[in-house]
Amino acid sequence: MTDPIQNTRILLASRPDGEPTADNFRIEHVPVPEPAEGEVLLRTIYLSLDPYMRGRMNDAKSYAAPVELGAVMEGGTVAEVVESRDPSLVPGDIVLSHLGWQAYGVLPAGQVRKLDPSRAPVSTAVGVLGMPGFTAYAGLLEIGRPQPGETVVVAAAAGPVGSAVGQIARIKGARAVGIAGGAQKVAWLEELGFDVALDHRSPTFKDDLKAAVPDGIDVYFENVGGHVWDAVLPRLNTYARVPVCGLVAHYNDTELPPGPDRAPRLMQTILTKSLTVRGFIQNEFVKTHYKAFQADAAGWIADGSLRHKEDIVQGLENAPEAFFGMLKGKNFGKLLVQVGDDPTR
Amino acid sequence: MTDPIQNTRILLASRPDGEPTADNFRIEHVPVPEPAEGEVLLRTIYLSLDPYMRGRMNDAKSYAAPVELGAVMEGGTVAEVVESRDPSLVPGDIVLSHLGWQAYGVLPAGQVRKLDPSRAPVSTAVGVLGMPGFTAYAGLLEIGRPQPGETVVVAAAAGPVGSAVGQIARIKGARAVGIAGGAQKVAWLEELGFDVALDHRSPTFKDDLKAAVPDGIDVYFENVGGHVWDAVLPRLNTYARVPVCGLVAHYNDTELPPGPDRAPRLMQTILTKSLTVRGFIQNEFVKTHYKAFQADAAGWIADGSLRHKEDIVQGLENAPEAFFGMLKGKNFGKLLVQVGDDPTR
Repeated sequence: MTDPIQNTRILLASRPDGEPTADNFRIEHVPVPEPAEGEVLLRTIYLSLDPYMRGRMNDAKSYAAPVELGAVMEGGTVAEVVESRDPSLVPGDIVLSHLGWQAYGVLPAGQVRKLDPSRAPVSTAVGVLGMPGFTAYAGLLEIGRPQPGETVVVAAAAGPVGSAVGQIARIKGARAVGIAGGAQKVAWLEELGFDVALDHRSPTFKDDLKAAVPDGIDVYFENVGGHVWDAVLPRLNTYARVPVCGLVAHYNDTELPPGPDRAPRLMQTILTKSLTVRGFIQNEFVKTHYKAFQADAAGWIADGSLRHKEDIVQGLENAPEAFFGMLKGKNFGKLLVQVGDDPTR
Repeated sequence: MTDPIQNTRILLASRPDGEPTADNFRIEHVPVPEPAEGEVLLRTIYLSLDPYMRGRMNDAKSYAAPVELGAVMEGGTVAEVVESRDPSLVPGDIVLSHLGWQAYGVLPAGQVRKLDPSRAPVSTAVGVLGMPGFTAYAGLLEIGRPQPGETVVVAAAAGPVGSAVGQIARIKGARAVGIAGGAQKVAWLEELGFDVALDHRSPTFKDDLKAAVPDGIDVYFENVGGHVWDAVLPRLNTYARVPVCGLVAHYNDTELPPGPDRAPRLMQTILTKSLTVRGFIQNEFVKTHYKAFQADAAGWIADGSLRHKEDIVQGLENAPEAFFGMLKGKNFGKLLVQVGDDPTR
């Protein structure tokens, strides 16, 4: 009997009060359990870092249960099968899995999906061909429903969701206006073919946006909130659609404005412009749209109309810092942590 | 040549600052113009008073242009043809029209719709069989989409829109919870068959609502805003739908909360509960749903499942006071001003 493999894992040590810090996490080294019948032992290659994880650190009721204190932080992973006790998988197989922030893990074989490295780089399974790409696809097409010639505005446009939203909008014949932070991201959006790319840090941002949407905004894909939303709201057209996918500008808010939720200004705008404001999580659309997404996205990637960028940080121990940076918009492209070697590259 | 008929009309004299007052209106007596070829001279029987009129008094951009200063206040009317210069109508015909706050008016025959007094009381053309009824029908069924067994909550439930919303919800197999102001209205809602009726003036209202919706709220038909919305929001279920039809609690607001529109609390609730918040005006659905509404509503009225109440004020000169009262919820049922005799009663 061999010695058990040593695992490194990052646990949620305490709940953040506002901006999360290194103190909220704890790193530990423990032996990996043996897989039981029907299970596989996995070695993490890539850990996906995504804004939703900030919500999981809170003890608040949301669409998913919070991560418990002392538990491994949650997260999607691309991993290699090290040992299999299920006939469906063999060592060396690469799988999409949800191991969380750890270097190894054991899962039932039924909870992982085998990837074909010859079809696309395996890292895209947590990016443009995975949850972020699907979020863009389902939210834009099912809620935003852009028509040819309409104007689609997306915030956090250089992120994995936003960049897909803008490109899919253009594929569907709409104008795409992307909003991002900093000249480098703006330049990349222009390279991707966005009709206009704007820097929300510019002192003239509000006027820039107004000038960029002479016919108003028909779809605003909301990833951000904050001052971008303030600038967008007066520009929305009658019957505009607002898929609400994220509000990263508010995830670290400790003080919400005092008083109740009634939001009379926003509600009056919703009323007088016949707006549709619709929150969503991609899970809702998996059954109905995931197959079509896989087919469409593969085609668009193949013909060059859907491009993506990855921002890869080396080493699991650097995951917390990378995560903090992402909440401030410091990543440029899909943020991944390379936890172990990628045998397919 | 006979002397021209003297008209009485109520004009918008000034724009209100907050709550409207008698000073905002001016009454005048002028001769009625002769109808030209293709026009009809009409005598107003009923003037409909509706909350949307408050918005028309402002000089703000909304879904419809404001009433101009010095112009006749806008409003739907049921009127009798006095003189016709169009072959489609003869004196004595009763028509649905949009004469506004006046005793007589001249309109092109193509802008009025002839009513059949044998089919339903003619006053219902501006009530349960007219704009308010259709608002309830379209907003509830197209946006709210209640499923059998779901819980529908409606505010201003004793009003012409709200009472129809609750009854149609029940017709569709949903539970209906109505919210109104005062014991008399609550008793009437119970008589109409609402599963629960609540008084929003009760000091225990928030808890009463919680107890009334043990399975949460799937559809909230928003007519009101204010403290009712505050109580509803925490009770909304995942995937709840909120048709936003009106915000009468805010129509006289002079001071909105300071700061921008971003409403992070509301937006976070929309996000985490995957809510659909959708403003609408019934016009949007006329082409697609008006025929079905007419047929459905006539059937439901005939079989007793859709009932209504009218609150009729006598005399055009009393329209302003009745209108002020309506904005405070003082009317009980569809508010009408009887401007002239109803030959069909």
